[in-house]
Amino acid sequence: MIISEALPAVLAQIDADLNRNLERLFEFLRIQSVSTDPAYKDQCRMAAKFVADDLAGIGFETSIRPTPGHPVVVGKSRDNGGAGRAPRVLFYGHYDVQPVDPLDLWAEPPFSPRMVTQADGRRIIVARGACDDKGQLMTFVEACRAFKAVTGRLPLPVTMMIEGEEECGSNNLFGFVKDHADELRLDLALVCDTSMWDPATPMVTTSLRGLLYEEVRISCADRDLHSGLFGGAAQNPLRVLSRILAALHDESGRITIPGFYDGVHELPSDIRRQLASLDLTADDFLGSVGLKVPAGEKDRMLIEQIATRPTAEINGMIGGYTGEGAKTVIPAQATAKVSFRLVGNQDPQRISTAFRAFVRERLPPDAKAEFQNFGSGAATEIPFDHPALAKTRAALADEWGKPAVTVGEGGSIPIVGEFKRLLGMDTIMVGFALDDDRVHSPNEKYDLTSFHRGTRSWARVLAALAE
Amino acid sequence: MIISEALPAVLAQIDADLNRNLERLFEFLRIQSVSTDPAYKDQCRMAAKFVADDLAGIGFETSIRPTPGHPVVVGKSRDNGGAGRAPRVLFYGHYDVQPVDPLDLWAEPPFSPRMVTQADGRRIIVARGACDDKGQLMTFVEACRAFKAVTGRLPLPVTMMIEGEEECGSNNLFGFVKDHADELRLDLALVCDTSMWDPATPMVTTSLRGLLYEEVRISCADRDLHSGLFGGAAQNPLRVLSRILAALHDESGRITIPGFYDGVHELPSDIRRQLASLDLTADDFLGSVGLKVPAGEKDRMLIEQIATRPTAEINGMIGGYTGEGAKTVIPAQATAKVSFRLVGNQDPQRISTAFRAFVRERLPPDAKAEFQNFGSGAATEIPFDHPALAKTRAALADEWGKPAVTVGEGGSIPIVGEFKRLLGMDTIMVGFALDDDRVHSPNEKYDLTSFHRGTRSWARVLAALAE
Repeated sequence: MIISEALPAVLAQIDADLNRNLERLFEFLRIQSVSTDPAYKDQCRMAAKFVADDLAGIGFETSIRPTPGHPVVVGKSRDNGGAGRAPRVLFYGHYDVQPVDPLDLWAEPPFSPRMVTQADGRRIIVARGACDDKGQLMTFVEACRAFKAVTGRLPLPVTMMIEGEEECGSNNLFGFVKDHADELRLDLALVCDTSMWDPATPMVTTSLRGLLYEEVRISCADRDLHSGLFGGAAQNPLRVLSRILAALHDESGRITIPGFYDGVHELPSDIRRQLASLDLTADDFLGSVGLKVPAGEKDRMLIEQIATRPTAEINGMIGGYTGEGAKTVIPAQATAKVSFRLVGNQDPQRISTAFRAFVRERLPPDAKAEFQNFGSGAATEIPFDHPALAKTRAALADEWGKPAVTVGEGGSIPIVGEFKRLLGMDTIMVGFALDDDRVHSPNEKYDLTSFHRGTRSWARVLAALAE
Repeated sequence: MIISEALPAVLAQIDADLNRNLERLFEFLRIQSVSTDPAYKDQCRMAAKFVADDLAGIGFETSIRPTPGHPVVVGKSRDNGGAGRAPRVLFYGHYDVQPVDPLDLWAEPPFSPRMVTQADGRRIIVARGACDDKGQLMTFVEACRAFKAVTGRLPLPVTMMIEGEEECGSNNLFGFVKDHADELRLDLALVCDTSMWDPATPMVTTSLRGLLYEEVRISCADRDLHSGLFGGAAQNPLRVLSRILAALHDESGRITIPGFYDGVHELPSDIRRQLASLDLTADDFLGSVGLKVPAGEKDRMLIEQIATRPTAEINGMIGGYTGEGAKTVIPAQATAKVSFRLVGNQDPQRISTAFRAFVRERLPPDAKAEFQNFGSGAATEIPFDHPALAKTRAALADEWGKPAVTVGEGGSIPIVGEFKRLLGMDTIMVGFALDDDRVHSPNEKYDLTSFHRGTRSWARVLAALAE
């Protein structure tokens, strides 16, 4: 059978099955697979089993592989689709989700998915993971299911690798990929964990920022102290930590850690022009979350700040008395979580070392620092002349009726860098998230359009890659 | 009866009643009167009732007076001790205690008082409030009880005012004192909420630092954001707050808020010499809590840093993800509690205004600040030539066998400033706390010696003041 001739029937099958596909997604969304919190270990295991069972149901040979953390689901299509001519693809996704706090900002419970019609008429799926990454992952799975139903097989050989620790740093996945390199080293990787340019414009993400996530704990006295008795004489770890974190950026928004910008390349002028032509305004990008002014490096365009430049952010900080009212305490400890988005050839390990030295050099007498790492991955990019990129763009253009934008994205999917480094494999990243999806925030959502046309898009992309 | 002749019998009565007095204190310590947390409202009420009932039992005319917060207990001795010659005294204390977190650092539950013998042989009472202020307050009450038992009356007219909001800023007490000025305006105020110079040396505290306690909340985006998508472009309130708090002190440890030092007097050279002669070393004062180096203004002696100079401390800070592991979030808000210890004529209201302006001036675009006040009181001092001071020092010297030190203390008891301002009344502050009492910290304790000889000390002071 010629794949392209089967495609209209596959797309029709996806349209016909929409409600059944949504029911399946909702079942997946009810599983509370928060990977960063050990309390949800069993729920993560349930989510892995859900994925494995579902893939088995459409003919994949599946296994749930243990790791020191949450397991990885591996599924291999048994039929030899593409008969040796088509590229063998590795699809990567994750079944784990972000924590849900602050819980009181959710309009409905985060693990009770529901369909809502917004004031502007858009129909949305609301739940933790609706977009990131359960909804996105299922667009690919449903495209496979439709092919199987219509043609009896997939258009090309597919191996699925669905992990459970993306939201807490993919700490065990690098080792897993290394240990299973022989079965995972295929021709091309596919990932559905990125976004569209806007609700009408598809996008292929051609580069991703890397991530380094560190926690620093400053300790001073061996107990909490009364700020009346000791105030003025005792070193205060909150003051120490504030001073160190305040020193991370200079007045122009540049990060001050020595050597931090090693490996950051300036954009070629044609790429810079292309980015400028996208004309991303602060109002477009920040307006929807109540902000107006880009807060990054002052000499960079907004799109550079979020896509092609490295960052340092304080993701969390706590110390002392944080309850209601007053407590006159000088705390014994203060803690901050600090993460860095990396680009180009920035080396996470070297930056971790430089960050820790930066902190230690600024410690006054009586202050000690301890560190923990919660994730580390280099930036990654696909060559602009990769043949799969052109095929993917054409397939997306067919579905959405307009050319697909190619752009770098600010988020990090640490494993994508490792696919290149460990397996020598490039990655095509296509996703259907929208800027207002409230990913990682309360009331996370995924547009019904994203889910439905995302599934159709993957069917087209698979067909195009198989040609 | 001549008071001084009765004194030996009163002291003997205190010795004989020690175990009964301890039982009464333990009953008081079992009441969880944490004033800053609304969850303990009923327990605060129970503590007020305990005090009122106990005072009634030794002949005080008592009442529990409502306020918008926790009630104030007022007790008046009905007999006319001193027959018009002795000064009428107002004793002030508080029945509320600090929160107990972090609870896991307590060796035993904080509201299960017990007697423990330390490795060095000292016997100590361990519980939240054992020292501050239930233990200290009861030294005065037990001295009154012993006088009553032995002589049938008190040596001078005593009015007790025991409040329940000292640990959360005494917010309603100023208004209460103003409203009841006619009954509270007596000849002298007495307070037992301060410390000894060392375990063998009694101390009269001749000045107290004032307190201004503010909370600042910085808000940026209208929701938590994904630091991958928005990192580099969105204003981060933790970064904003860190930068502002880091700017509160300059490199020499001086506070940078404009006008902050207005009203701070330089010490007369003789007082400065007396302070220097006390030879307080960092090892003496900081060594017991695991610190070595005074962290205050670099050009000031340690004893100045803790007793006679103003401070700014961050008492608590929270924002973003503070749970286990990683969450790549840019938070919508970040909050800090900041308190200032004040000296001389520093005006809390003007400093509050200046602090808030200091914060607002440093807000970058897209950042907003909101403030709350949790306490405000000026510094206070008693004249060195006050006649009650000499009598008190002599009485203490009789009990402890060595002269009483007079020194300023770093902590704040906001109402003492108001006694002077609203009622024109000076305050004698005598207390028996020790530097290692872990006041406001886990495992708070009060030495049995402090409790027992503190009670004897008050009996001697009351006798001396009545002469």
